[in-house]
Amino acid sequence: MEEITRIGVFTSGGDSPGMNAAIRAAVRTALYNGKKVTGIYHGYQGMIDNEMYEMSSESVSSIIQKGGTILKTARCMAFKTPEGRAQAYANVKAAGIDALVAIGGDGTFTGAEIFSREYDIPVMCIPGTIDNDLNGTDLTIGYDTANNTVIEAIDKIRDTAASHNRLFFVEVMGRDSGCIALNAGIAGGAEAILLPEKDTAIEELIDMLAQGATTHKSSMIVIVAEGDKNGGATNVAKRVKEKFDYFDTKVSILGHLQRGGSPSSADRVLATRMGYSAVNELLRGNNRATIGVRGSEVVTTPLEEALSKKELKLNEDLVEIAKIMAI
Amino acid sequence: MEEITRIGVFTSGGDSPGMNAAIRAAVRTALYNGKKVTGIYHGYQGMIDNEMYEMSSESVSSIIQKGGTILKTARCMAFKTPEGRAQAYANVKAAGIDALVAIGGDGTFTGAEIFSREYDIPVMCIPGTIDNDLNGTDLTIGYDTANNTVIEAIDKIRDTAASHNRLFFVEVMGRDSGCIALNAGIAGGAEAILLPEKDTAIEELIDMLAQGATTHKSSMIVIVAEGDKNGGATNVAKRVKEKFDYFDTKVSILGHLQRGGSPSSADRVLATRMGYSAVNELLRGNNRATIGVRGSEVVTTPLEEALSKKELKLNEDLVEIAKIMAI
Amino acid sequence: MEEITRIGVFTSGGDSPGMNAAIRAAVRTALYNGKKVTGIYHGYQGMIDNEMYEMSSESVSSIIQKGGTILKTARCMAFKTPEGRAQAYANVKAAGIDALVAIGGDGTFTGAEIFSREYDIPVMCIPGTIDNDLNGTDLTIGYDTANNTVIEAIDKIRDTAASHNRLFFVEVMGRDSGCIALNAGIAGGAEAILLPEKDTAIEELIDMLAQGATTHKSSMIVIVAEGDKNGGATNVAKRVKEKFDYFDTKVSILGHLQRGGSPSSADRVLATRMGYSAVNELLRGNNRATIGVRGSEVVTTPLEEALSKKELKLNEDLVEIAKIMAI
Amino acid sequence: MEEITRIGVFTSGGDSPGMNAAIRAAVRTALYNGKKVTGIYHGYQGMIDNEMYEMSSESVSSIIQKGGTILKTARCMAFKTPEGRAQAYANVKAAGIDALVAIGGDGTFTGAEIFSREYDIPVMCIPGTIDNDLNGTDLTIGYDTANNTVIEAIDKIRDTAASHNRLFFVEVMGRDSGCIALNAGIAGGAEAILLPEKDTAIEELIDMLAQGATTHKSSMIVIVAEGDKNGGATNVAKRVKEKFDYFDTKVSILGHLQRGGSPSSADRVLATRMGYSAVNELLRGNNRATIGVRGSEVVTTPLEEALSKKELKLNEDLVEIAKIMAI
Repeated sequence: MEEITRIGVFTSGGDSPGMNAAIRAAVRTALYNGKKVTGIYHGYQGMIDNEMYEMSSESVSSIIQKGGTILKTARCMAFKTPEGRAQAYANVKAAGIDALVAIGGDGTFTGAEIFSREYDIPVMCIPGTIDNDLNGTDLTIGYDTANNTVIEAIDKIRDTAASHNRLFFVEVMGRDSGCIALNAGIAGGAEAILLPEKDTAIEELIDMLAQGATTHKSSMIVIVAEGDKNGGATNVAKRVKEKFDYFDTKVSILGHLQRGGSPSSADRVLATRMGYSAVNELLRGNNRATIGVRGSEVVTTPLEEALSKKELKLNEDLVEIAKIMAI
Repeated sequence: MEEITRIGVFTSGGDSPGMNAAIRAAVRTALYNGKKVTGIYHGYQGMIDNEMYEMSSESVSSIIQKGGTILKTARCMAFKTPEGRAQAYANVKAAGIDALVAIGGDGTFTGAEIFSREYDIPVMCIPGTIDNDLNGTDLTIGYDTANNTVIEAIDKIRDTAASHNRLFFVEVMGRDSGCIALNAGIAGGAEAILLPEKDTAIEELIDMLAQGATTHKSSMIVIVAEGDKNGGATNVAKRVKEKFDYFDTKVSILGHLQRGGSPSSADRVLATRMGYSAVNELLRGNNRATIGVRGSEVVTTPLEEALSKKELKLNEDLVEIAKIMAI
Repeated sequence: MEEITRIGVFTSGGDSPGMNAAIRAAVRTALYNGKKVTGIYHGYQGMIDNEMYEMSSESVSSIIQKGGTILKTARCMAFKTPEGRAQAYANVKAAGIDALVAIGGDGTFTGAEIFSREYDIPVMCIPGTIDNDLNGTDLTIGYDTANNTVIEAIDKIRDTAASHNRLFFVEVMGRDSGCIALNAGIAGGAEAILLPEKDTAIEELIDMLAQGATTHKSSMIVIVAEGDKNGGATNVAKRVKEKFDYFDTKVSILGHLQRGGSPSSADRVLATRMGYSAVNELLRGNNRATIGVRGSEVVTTPLEEALSKKELKLNEDLVEIAKIMAI
Repeated sequence: MEEITRIGVFTSGGDSPGMNAAIRAAVRTALYNGKKVTGIYHGYQGMIDNEMYEMSSESVSSIIQKGGTILKTARCMAFKTPEGRAQAYANVKAAGIDALVAIGGDGTFTGAEIFSREYDIPVMCIPGTIDNDLNGTDLTIGYDTANNTVIEAIDKIRDTAASHNRLFFVEVMGRDSGCIALNAGIAGGAEAILLPEKDTAIEELIDMLAQGATTHKSSMIVIVAEGDKNGGATNVAKRVKEKFDYFDTKVSILGHLQRGGSPSSADRVLATRMGYSAVNELLRGNNRATIGVRGSEVVTTPLEEALSKKELKLNEDLVEIAKIMAI
C-alpha cells in the first residue's frame, strides 16, 4: 500500500448530533500526523459534484458543540450506479485524496464498502445515526443526545399530562430499531412501550393501562416507536380510545427535533474517539472497516461483517425492566 | 363586606408553566396576612366534587420550578349549569372559603365572573395560559416559557434542516392567537410565519420561499400557528410542495410539549407577582377582576371588561420585522 | 444632514447573549433599506485598529441563536483619548461609514456620545448588558437570558442542598445592580437576597435564616449580588457561619457562565426589535440616542439624558415580595 | 439464609443525579417480587436516629426525573463507632428489615461492608457519585449528568471567552479523580486539562497555551480538576498569568451545581438497571457486593474486592486524544 498523504472526510445519510465532533477529530488527527485533509460536502453527492475544500485546524474550531454537520449531508441515488461512482472516483483522484473517512449509517457503509473495493481506496467508517441500529458498536454517534432530547420532551409532556389526568401516546424515531423507544421509555417513566421488535397487541396494551388505572396513576405515557407494527402513535391512540376511555387521550409525534441539538458530553467524547481512531486505523493500514466501541474499548469490524449480519440490538433485560417499572 | 378569613385557590382549563409559582405566591401571601387557605383540586370540577385540602407554607415548598399545576386542572361542563354552581357554592361555603383566586384562561374567567355575581363571593383571576390571548395584561403566565420551548425545538430542527438543505413546516400552539408563532418565529429566525390573524395565501408564501432560494439559504423554516386558516402545517406543506420543490420538505407538529417544562425566570417572577397581588387585591376589597401587567406595573381590570372586548393582541411592528429579518 | 449610505455596526464592553440578534437585525434592516453595512471588530479598539469588513445578509445567517458576539468586543482605553478617537474617525471616514450603531453598556454609550459630537457622526445605541443597569429602557439585551441561566444553576443547587439540609450562598453578577440577584432570587425561591442597593446587616440575615430553621425548611439559599456591601458570598458565608450553624454551609460563585449561552426567546425578540429600530431611527434622522423598551413600546432617549441621571432601577415591590415568599 | 421479607433502602454520602431513579427501581422491583420496602432517611444517620417510613409504588412516582435524593443523605461519624452501628442495627431489626440496598460512594460501601459482616445482614451496594471513582463498574450514577452539566457551563463560558479573546481557567469537581475533567475537557474542546493523576508543570501548561497563541485561537479554556496538585484553578491562573499574558485571564469555579440537575437519560437507565439488579441479587442470595456495569452488562463485585484495590480509572488514550484535539 502506498503511503497516505491526503484524507477525504464526509458525512452521508441522515445527520446526527456529534457528527461535527467526529469531523473535527478526524481532521485534527490527520493534520497532527502530517497528512492533508479534504472536506467533501453533501456526502457521495458532493463527491460526484466535486464539492470539496481544503480543511485546516481552524476550519473545525468551535464546531464540537454544534448539532448537524458542517460538511452537510445528502442521500444520493447516483452513487448506486457504476457511472456515479466512476465520476466520484475521478474527482477523488483529481483532488489527491488517497483514503476516506465516511460518517453515517447503513447506506453510507454499503456505499463505502463497494467504492473501496471497486477503486481500491482505503476507507474507514464511523457510525453516526440516532437510531443505534448498526453492527460493530455498542453505541452510535447521536443516540445518547437523541435519548436526552426525547426525555426532555417526555418530562414536559408529563407535567401537563399529570395536571390533566391524561393518557399520552408519544411517537419517537428509530425506524426498525426500538432502541430510542426502549431507553427513553424507561428514562421517561413510561407506562408502556411499543417496539418494532415486539408484537404488542392492542388488547395487551389496554390491559397494562387498565392496571395503571387501578393504582390511581395521575397520568400515563405510552411510547410508540415509529416502526411499531400497529402503525404509529395516531393509530394506536385511536384503537385504544375505542376500548379504554379512563383518561383523556392525546398524541405527540416528536419528529425531526430528535435529530438536532447540541450533542451530549458522551456523544462528543464518543465521536472524538471515533474520529481519532478512524484516521489512526487508516494510517496503520486498516481498510474497509467500521469503528465501534465495546464497553470502554474502541474496536474495528470489517464492513463486510458489519453489513452482513443483523444482530438483534434490543436488550431483553431492559424490556423486562420497563414492565416492572410501570407498576 | 365581611372580612376575609379563608381564601380558596384553584387552577382551571389548560395548564401552563408558572401556575405553581402563582399558587405558591397566593398561598404564602394569604398566610403572611393571617388568612387561611384551601386548595381546590381540578378547578371547578373539584369545587363540585368537594376535592379540597388545607394549604400550609410547606405545601407549596419546592414547586416554583415545576411545570403543570399541583392543584391539577380540568375543563368542567357541569359548572356551566346553575345546578353545578349551586353544588360548588355549597361546598365552598361548607369549607369556610370566603374569597377565591382563580388561575386560568378565558373559560376560567367566565366561570369566575358568573359564580362571583351569583353567590356574591369575591374573586380575583390570574391569567395563566401559554397562548397570551387574554385582555387586561401584556403577558400571561406560561407564554414566555412556551416561547423558549418552541425556539429550542426550532434550533434543533434548524441543525438538521441546514445539514440537509430542507424546508420545514413547524406547527406551534396558540389556538386563535398568533403570539407564540410570531414571537418564536422571529426568535427562531423563521423564513415565514403563518398567523391566524392574517390571511396568507399559499402563493404569497411560495413567493417568499422562492426569494430565499435565490439567496442560497441552506434551510428554511415556516412557522404555522395551529389556528392558521390554511389548515395546519401538514396541509400547508402539501400545498407548497405541489408548486415549490426546491428543497426536501418535512413537517413537525410540536404539540403538548409546549405546555410543560420548568417555567422560565420571567414566568416565575410574573406568576409570583400576580399571586401576591391577587390576594392583596382581595384583602383590599377588590373583586371580580383580573390581575395583569402593563410594562413593569401590576394592574387590575374588571372581569366584565376583560371578557367583553376582543382587542387584537398582535403587534403589527413585529409582523413587519419578521418579514424584513427573513431576507 | 447628508443621506446615510453606509452604517457601521459594533459591539463594545462586556458581551451579553442576544447581541448577535441585534447585529443581525441592524444589518438586515440596513440592507433592506438599500444601505451598505460595515462590521467593526472589537468595538472602539477595532475602529482604531481598522478591523472592518463588509457585511451581507448571509454574514449574519444562523447567528440569532448564538451567545457572545460575532463582531467580538473589547474594552478600549485609547478611545478615551482625543488621539485615539481621531485615529478611529480617520478609519471610519476612510471606510465610507456615515452612521454608527453601537451595542453595549454605559461605557459604550459614553464613548458614542463623545465621538458623535466631536465628529458630527450620527450614532444610535442599543443597550446590551446582562446587568439591566441602563437608563432609557425597562430591559437590556441579555438580562432575561442571564436570569434563566442563574435559575437553572439555583435549581441544580437546590437539588443537592435539599438532599443534604444545606445552606448555600450563591453569588450572582450585576456589579452595582441588584436586578439579577432580585429576579433570580425570587424565581429561584431564595430564602434571602443581598442587594447592592440595600444594606442588609449580617444580623438581620441571620434572623431571617433562623426563622426558616423554625419552619423546618430542608435547605436554604441566599443570593448575594456581587456588588453587595458585605463583600461577596464567601465573606457573607463566613460571617453567618460564626453565629448560625444550623445547616452545613457552602458557597457557589456562578461567574462568567452568566454571560454566555444561547439567548432566550425574549432576548432574541428584544434584540431584533432594537436592531431594527436603531437603523430606522438613524434613517429618520435621529441621532445621539439610545433605543429602549417601555412596556411593549420601543422608545428612544437622548444619550445625554440616559447618561446623566442614575435612576434607581430596583423594584421595591419585588423586594417586599421576595421577603414574603421566603416564609 | 432466611427468606427476605422487607428491604431497607437508603442513600448516603454525597448525592448525585439519578439516585432517585435507583431508589424507584429498587422499591418497585421489591414490591413486584412481593417484598415490603422501608425507606431510611439520611443514610446511616437516619438508621441510628430511626428515621424510617414505609414505601409504596406511589411513593416513588414522578421522581425519576428529579436530581438529589428523596431519601436525603448525610455523612455520619457515629456509624463509624460500634455503638452507632449497634443502635442502627437495633432500629433496623425492630423495623423488620432483613436486607439492605445502599446507594452511595466509597464511604457508603465501607460502612455497608462492616455492618453486613458485623450483624450478618445481606446488603447490596449501588455506586452513586458524580466522580466516577469506584471500582467494580465502568460508570457511576450521576457521572454522565455531571459531564453534561459541565459542558453546558463550558459552552457558555466559550461564548464570552471567544467574544473577548480570553483565557479561562475552569475548575471542575472530582476530588482525586480526573474523570469529569478529562471527559468534559474533551467534550468542551478545552485547550488544556490539569488532572490529579498527572503532574503537569506550570511551564508545560504555558508551552501548550503559547502554541495556541501562535495558531490564532480566539479563546482558550483550561480545565482544572479540583484535586490537581497545582492547587486549584485560582492558583494555576495566578501562576500562568505571571508568565503568559497573551490573553485576559478569568477563573470560574463551577462548584455544587455539578451535583444537581435532572438526570440524563443514560443516568436514569443506568440507575434503573442498578436498582433492579440490586434487589434481584439480594433475592438470589447475593450479599456484600456492589452492582456495576461493564460495557452493556450488569455485573457484581464483592465489596471487599471493590474496596481493596485502587485501580487507575483514567483512560490514557483519552489523555492523548485531549492533547491532539487542542492543536
